[in-house]
Amino acid sequence: MPDIGTFEILHEDPESRARLGRLWTAHGPVDTPVFMPVGTQATVKSMAPWELEELNCGILLGNTYHLNVRPGMEVFEKMGGLHRFMDWKRAILTDSGGYQVFSLTHLRRMTPDGVWFQSHVDGTKMFMGPQESMAIQRTLGSDIAMAFDECPPCPCTPEYACQAVDRTLSWAAQCAQQPRAPGQLVFGIVQGGVHPELRERCAKGLLALGAFDGYAIGGVSVGEPEDLIMPGVRMTADLLPRERPRYLMGVGQFWQMAESVALGVDMFDCVMPTRLARHGTVFTRSGRYSVRAAVHRLDDRPLEDGCACPACQRFSRGYVRHLLNVGEILGVRLTALHNMFGYFGFIARLRDSIRENRFEAFRAETARVYGPDAAGPGAAAGA
Amino acid sequence: MPDIGTFEILHEDPESRARLGRLWTAHGPVDTPVFMPVGTQATVKSMAPWELEELNCGILLGNTYHLNVRPGMEVFEKMGGLHRFMDWKRAILTDSGGYQVFSLTHLRRMTPDGVWFQSHVDGTKMFMGPQESMAIQRTLGSDIAMAFDECPPCPCTPEYACQAVDRTLSWAAQCAQQPRAPGQLVFGIVQGGVHPELRERCAKGLLALGAFDGYAIGGVSVGEPEDLIMPGVRMTADLLPRERPRYLMGVGQFWQMAESVALGVDMFDCVMPTRLARHGTVFTRSGRYSVRAAVHRLDDRPLEDGCACPACQRFSRGYVRHLLNVGEILGVRLTALHNMFGYFGFIARLRDSIRENRFEAFRAETARVYGPDAAGPGAAAGA
Repeated sequence: MPDIGTFEILHEDPESRARLGRLWTAHGPVDTPVFMPVGTQATVKSMAPWELEELNCGILLGNTYHLNVRPGMEVFEKMGGLHRFMDWKRAILTDSGGYQVFSLTHLRRMTPDGVWFQSHVDGTKMFMGPQESMAIQRTLGSDIAMAFDECPPCPCTPEYACQAVDRTLSWAAQCAQQPRAPGQLVFGIVQGGVHPELRERCAKGLLALGAFDGYAIGGVSVGEPEDLIMPGVRMTADLLPRERPRYLMGVGQFWQMAESVALGVDMFDCVMPTRLARHGTVFTRSGRYSVRAAVHRLDDRPLEDGCACPACQRFSRGYVRHLLNVGEILGVRLTALHNMFGYFGFIARLRDSIRENRFEAFRAETARVYGPDAAGPGAAAGA
Repeated sequence: MPDIGTFEILHEDPESRARLGRLWTAHGPVDTPVFMPVGTQATVKSMAPWELEELNCGILLGNTYHLNVRPGMEVFEKMGGLHRFMDWKRAILTDSGGYQVFSLTHLRRMTPDGVWFQSHVDGTKMFMGPQESMAIQRTLGSDIAMAFDECPPCPCTPEYACQAVDRTLSWAAQCAQQPRAPGQLVFGIVQGGVHPELRERCAKGLLALGAFDGYAIGGVSVGEPEDLIMPGVRMTADLLPRERPRYLMGVGQFWQMAESVALGVDMFDCVMPTRLARHGTVFTRSGRYSVRAAVHRLDDRPLEDGCACPACQRFSRGYVRHLLNVGEILGVRLTALHNMFGYFGFIARLRDSIRENRFEAFRAETARVYGPDAAGPGAAAGA
């Protein structure tokens, strides 16, 4: 077995930067390109771990900020880390908490060492900086920790974006020095907003530290118009070394993932499959739709024709609509199962296309069916 | 295979009226004594049908009133009945809707043919009587339909209880004449409140119709003090024929079920395992407790030591507490799985004790551990 942290590039697409890779973690290999379901509060919403195992899910994301607030670190110290707490035996990546601290909380004061803020739950005064974030992630025992960063919202002034890059670099250097859990990898995060020169400075600064096992593209899905997301990915992916995994944070529409893979991105996370499931939005290979619509009241078809997921194997749209309509938990479970099944199926087909040297056709087809210019009702809103 | 409606008595306890039976329905045999999980709105709350199948659940209860309001009968007419709608391949019993009409809705007017009322959801004016109830249950296609009854609340005046028995008998006679779904059985319901003479009149009236495949004991768990429940069961069970199944409606504490089985009751339903699961109440073989209590924050034990359910096999009390505490669906799923597993385990042990001629010891032990006079913290509140 290769050393933990090894990133094998198994195959490269001849027409783009797309590649098949394998990242070795303390909880086994993670095949890339990979989609990581979000388990904010030590659970992927509405799903049991055995359901994710059946999807061959190899890595989950956990949220440092949320887990620190509830249940709190004492629980993880006593009970042996996040894997054991949620009984997840495969890999876990934890975010740094930076995004939540800056977006969810009432900020009190910035210092060179971190941020004073009030918890979004009960207003408790808390402090988090690079040392605290890494200590929490060490206690959680994630396989991949993220360096503590400042992710400014979009829009923000160039001056603020510049300061955020300064802090992100300074904090990244501190993170690199912190003790880690056994076998824990650490990724740096490139910020810089919509400014190519800031992105470049941030990436170069992180690379100069020579301390990271992978690099993330941060701050491209934090409120900007959709047409700024892909340019942000493009300008950042170009700055990152071929030999390390590249992780695009928080971006998860099918067409965006395909375009990003073409630019060399290996890892994705997104709350969409579960969040939209709670609202009754169903992803299909031909776009998405709301199963709550009255037109599905008597609809005897499965959520998606030809789908092999547990929901489509047994139930009709009319039944799922009824469950959601009367607030029954099983409704959310079924739409989440279906959407997550669709995400893993999409990534499996994407990988197959790279393996078989037909990724460019797959990417073009994905853009046609799901992209921003896609034709057909509902298609433009495709996952 | 015996005819549909056949009730085989497989073994009788030498010391009580407890018996092992088998009721043949259009969707297979139902072994008794049996516990029927409640699937009010075409789902047992938070559970998927495959989870109930794994518990060897042989029969579910559905609610005529709720299903008539939402999704409405057009859905079942178009989509082929309740079994197909919720993809449940085993037996289903539907209640008559009488209990909900009289307890949930704003009543408008009683007529000899039924009741005008307003829907509890949106105030829609609706009418239900024996013809309507049986027509709905026919459309649902349940294996066992219940005759439309009036279940007066406790307390009520003797005069009102008497009128309710008159109406229940008149409506039962009408129900017996209605067309049924193929192979559908119909049970009559004995009302009469706390009055032995009314109970006797009602039971004799139902038996005189000679039309029912089984008999239910109604109106003993509708608001009366707990010490009136078992006397109500006793006075009614004595009136019902040995050769037909006896169904005690809405009663489901372990000790009550054991005492009722001793009186010859064969079937039970109760919302407790799922309803209390939503509040974080966990049933165990030594009583029940709230896993939401702060004392379980760092508790690494499973919900119940030695339990083989999917929740106890993988998770700690600390984890389940956290999930419930932050409002995650998986928390409710796990407590519901555990509680339902406990119910089916209890019924399995009860059946074993009858089969092995040691039911009396089982009943006494159940009373000791879970009964109203049980010693020990939490024990008196045992399931």
